[in-house]
Parts: sequence; structure tokens; C-alpha cells
Amino acid sequence: MAEFELITRIRQRAATRDDVILGIGDDAALLQPPTGHQLVVAMDTLNAGVHFPRATAAADIGWKALAVNLSDLAAMGAEPAWCTLSLSLPESDEDWLDGFLDGFLELAAQHRVALVGGDTTRGPLSVCVTVHGFVEPGRALRRDAARVGDTVWVSGTLGDAAAALALLESGAIPAVDTLRQRLDRPTPRIALGRALSGLAHACIDVSDGLLADLDHVCEASGVGMRIALDRLPASDALGTACDDDARASFQASGGDDYELAFTAPTATDGEILAAAANAGVPVSRVGEVVVGERVRAFAADGCEWQPRHRGHIHFDG
Amino acid sequence: MAEFELITRIRQRAATRDDVILGIGDDAALLQPPTGHQLVVAMDTLNAGVHFPRATAAADIGWKALAVNLSDLAAMGAEPAWCTLSLSLPESDEDWLDGFLDGFLELAAQHRVALVGGDTTRGPLSVCVTVHGFVEPGRALRRDAARVGDTVWVSGTLGDAAAALALLESGAIPAVDTLRQRLDRPTPRIALGRALSGLAHACIDVSDGLLADLDHVCEASGVGMRIALDRLPASDALGTACDDDARASFQASGGDDYELAFTAPTATDGEILAAAANAGVPVSRVGEVVVGERVRAFAADGCEWQPRHRGHIHFDG
Repeated sequence: MAEFELITRIRQRAATRDDVILGIGDDAALLQPPTGHQLVVAMDTLNAGVHFPRATAAADIGWKALAVNLSDLAAMGAEPAWCTLSLSLPESDEDWLDGFLDGFLELAAQHRVALVGGDTTRGPLSVCVTVHGFVEPGRALRRDAARVGDTVWVSGTLGDAAAALALLESGAIPAVDTLRQRLDRPTPRIALGRALSGLAHACIDVSDGLLADLDHVCEASGVGMRIALDRLPASDALGTACDDDARASFQASGGDDYELAFTAPTATDGEILAAAANAGVPVSRVGEVVVGERVRAFAADGCEWQPRHRGHIHFDG
Repeated sequence: MAEFELITRIRQRAATRDDVILGIGDDAALLQPPTGHQLVVAMDTLNAGVHFPRATAAADIGWKALAVNLSDLAAMGAEPAWCTLSLSLPESDEDWLDGFLDGFLELAAQHRVALVGGDTTRGPLSVCVTVHGFVEPGRALRRDAARVGDTVWVSGTLGDAAAALALLESGAIPAVDTLRQRLDRPTPRIALGRALSGLAHACIDVSDGLLADLDHVCEASGVGMRIALDRLPASDALGTACDDDARASFQASGGDDYELAFTAPTATDGEILAAAANAGVPVSRVGEVVVGERVRAFAADGCEWQPRHRGHIHFDG
């Protein structure tokens, strides 16, 4: 297929929305933002061999490329609307593209996101996505809004994706089906982000590892945090797959969870629990915001935990 | 530098605007679109060795990555406002990044475009940019708006960038300084696009080659075109650098010009010329829209011209 055939194929499968005046096929997309809202824009790239194992199924790459971007909108409390996709492919491969679109468009449909533009180019396999959403003025969840005394919360379970990657790299593929689903098909917590919008204080999605991500919140907000390691939520699969030390490390420092970590005044604990129940996502109290500069994590015996590294660091050479 | 240091460096140099509520540094950017406007979004990637020669200076890559995106907004008649940047780098290189930002931010400043987000990742050198702009409802320049009887216009001169690339590949580097500037530092015709908005009918930017790009307009509009080869505008440098046959080929089929090709009712010829004069860009009448299906180009002797290929085709293997 030539480039234009690839684009035609994508165009034929992409859904639209009433607020898309002009989607794929012109020099740019023409969109109608709703009045009285702010626009929320996130952009993330996944490169083969860096952000996903090269053997990952095309459909999983498609899903994940959109999921990590939607997760950023969730962390802002935004309602998603549109996305653009720039796909670099080493060669034109119809079957691969169809598989990729299966995963990408399945997740897009779940959140009523219209694919409205982008490009296809020749190059090493790389997927760049930009997502657009909306939030009511004053209700965005920002990193700089944590306040001393807030409770620190985390959604879902932590560490599954990092454990899956470690097990995959050690060759233990058959053992990790449940965990691998968490690595390959992360769930952007859109409904939870919307429910927390205007209720929680600060929020971030856990992509680099809980402690590393919460450090960003501390820095932006000018606060510290104390996290109780034994309160970090773990899946049954993670408990079965590794010992306690490895589990704690995956939970505190593993990346790719795409859960939400957020802070809220202690007085709103009941409202937070009700909002999470409405969104269908469990949330756990894992610590508190204190005077300080960064996150400190403590084991059940009261000893401070010193991770080997706090999260994924790129470009550390 | 670690990833966060790269982002900090970008953040320190990026300018902002009043309508940027939250720029680089959170999970997503928070932006305030103007009321009563439509949002225009374009996204284009440049890969090393595909879209620019690997030896291209970092500042030129930065400039071009933004320029090709702004050119898409120009072709819609939009006013640019914000952009996001996803930069994949094989290794962290402070000097390269500074050079890249020199070119990128120089062009951004010329058009008051704020860099509001994106990411940096490890991977083969690749630059993905998404640009956002606005247009008044009903005034966007679309590919599907050409009408039989319209005059076909082109801005600036054609063929310079393709000639530069051909000369570079043949090793004739010293001879092509003037042309090379057109390849490395294309000028997005923003002011012209704004001036044509609500006045011209269809518009497209010349990125793949004039005939190939006008074919898209013909297809979208359900029309044909007749183009007079001897009316295609050429720079003095192009005339000096090659013979008449090569010149015609570069002008008609060469890519990377980023001029605007547009159609307008013949009765508005005077207004078009005045608008272009206001925008400071020469425009040339090169043909007419006719009943038909695609573009046909004719030489001065009346013979139809058959190009070897009509423009850049990716993925043609």
C-alpha cells in the first residue's frame, strides 16, 4: 500500500463525532470545542524496543498508544474528545495496520474519542498520539495543588505491569498472562478522573513509578509525602508471582501502571470513596501530604524504605 | 541529561501566551480557546533520513519540524496558537537540543506560537509536532471547495527545495546555498492563508509536489484542472541551477516547497492580488478548474506533460 492507501484505510475505519467538522483527509482537522470549557492536550510517543517489547502484538501497541495518552487526560480530570495519530512504519504492512487499528479504535470507541488526523511516514516503528479533551474552568486536577494534611490515594493496584515486564525479560512468559494484560492493555482511569475533578486536589498518573511520579507532585506543590508501603494495593496475581521484597519494589517503583495517584483533604474521604465507587474503580489511602520536599516511603516496621531507583529514568547515560 | 532535565531545558526556553493556563510540566496542557472560533489541528512527523538528510543541522530540523505543521494551518486559513513536541533522540545531547530549540523557537516566536507540552523519548531521531490554531466558522480553506471556472493560484516559487535535495544528493553542495535554504528553512505562508480565508475557495500546501497535491483537491472537490507549465513560478536560483526540463520537473513534481496552491473565482482576481500584496507574498495564476477528475499539465507548445512521477510517494514498495 502507498501512503495514501494507508490513510484511506485508517479513514474508513475511524469513527467521528458531531463536533468534528472536518476529520481525516484535509491539511488539518476542523473541530468545534464546546463553549465555556478549557481545552486539555496531551502528547506521548511509544517507540518499539523502548516503550514496548518488539514482539508486542500490533493490537496491543494500538491500544497502549492511545491508553497512555488518555491516562494523561484522566489525570487532569478531563473528558476526552479527539485524537491525532502519527504512525512511523518500517514498511507498509496491511495486516499489521489492521491489527493496530483493532486495538487503537477499540479503546477509542470505549471513550467516544474520534481519530481526526495525523500522518503515516516511513521510519523505525514509532507511534505518536495527541489527545484532546475538555474540563470545566477551575476543575482541572493539577500537580501543584497538593496541600499539607491531604490524604494520598491510589487507584486500582500497583506493580502488575512492571512485574509482567520483568517476568517476560526473564523468559517466564506462560506465568504472566494476568499481569501481561496489565502491561499491554492498561486502563486509562477516565471515569475516575472525571469523578475526582473539582473534588480532589493534586493528581498524576502513575507511568514512571509511584514514588517518582509523586515526587513530581511534591516538587510542583512544594510539599512532602509519607507513604506506607504496606498500604500500596496489590493484585492477587502480583502476590502469587513474586516475594514480598520484589512486590514492594514493583509497587513503589515500577512503571506503566497508569493508575491515578491523587491527594484530597481528609474531610472528603467519604466523598472520594463514593466518587470512586460510582466510577467503578477501587481506591486506597496510601499516605499523607506533609511539610517537606519529596516522598518518603516506610515499611510496616517503621523503617524508611530506600529503593534502588525511584522509577524509570530515560537518558541516564 | 536525564529525561526530566531535557524537559526542564525545553520548558525554560519556551515562551507562553495569555491563553495558556498550564503549559509544559503537568500531565497535559490546559488551554483557553477563544469563543466563537473553530479549532484547527495538524500533526506531522519528520524522521531522520526520510524527511531530512541525516547531516542536517539541528537548528534546521527544529525549524522545519514546526514549519511543515504551520504550513498545514496556513493551508486551512488558520491563525496558529499552540504546539506540542514529541522528540525521540538516540542519545541525550545538550548541544543538539539547544540547536534544535534555536530553530524551532525562532519560528515559533515569529508566529506567536507557544510550545505547551509533549514528551522526550529515547529512539531513532524523530520529531513529531502537533499544532493548534483557530479559524472563524465558515472561513476555513478546504480541499473540497474548488469549483469549475476557478482560477488556480500558487504562492512564491516552486521546485527550489526538490532541486536542492537533488543537488545535495549529487554532491554539488557549494552550488545550492540559496536553494538549500528553501529546503531546510521553508516559510509557512500563514499571513497569506489568513488573507485568503473567506476569500479563496480550495487550498492545499505543496508538500508532496504540485500535481500530486492538486490531485487531492480535484478528488475532494470532484473537479479537474488544467495547469500551464510555463506559468509555474521559478526562482532565479532554480533557473541558474538546472536546464528547462529539470526545472519543469522540479516545479511540477518536486516536494517540500510548502507554498500554497489555491483556487478562487476569476471575478476575485483583483482581491486575491491585493490580499497577497498585503501578506507580502507574490502569487501566480497557473491554471483553471475544469470539469474532470484530475490535474493535467500542458507545456507552452500545447502538448500534455507526462511526469515520470507526480510527487513523493511513500510506501510504494
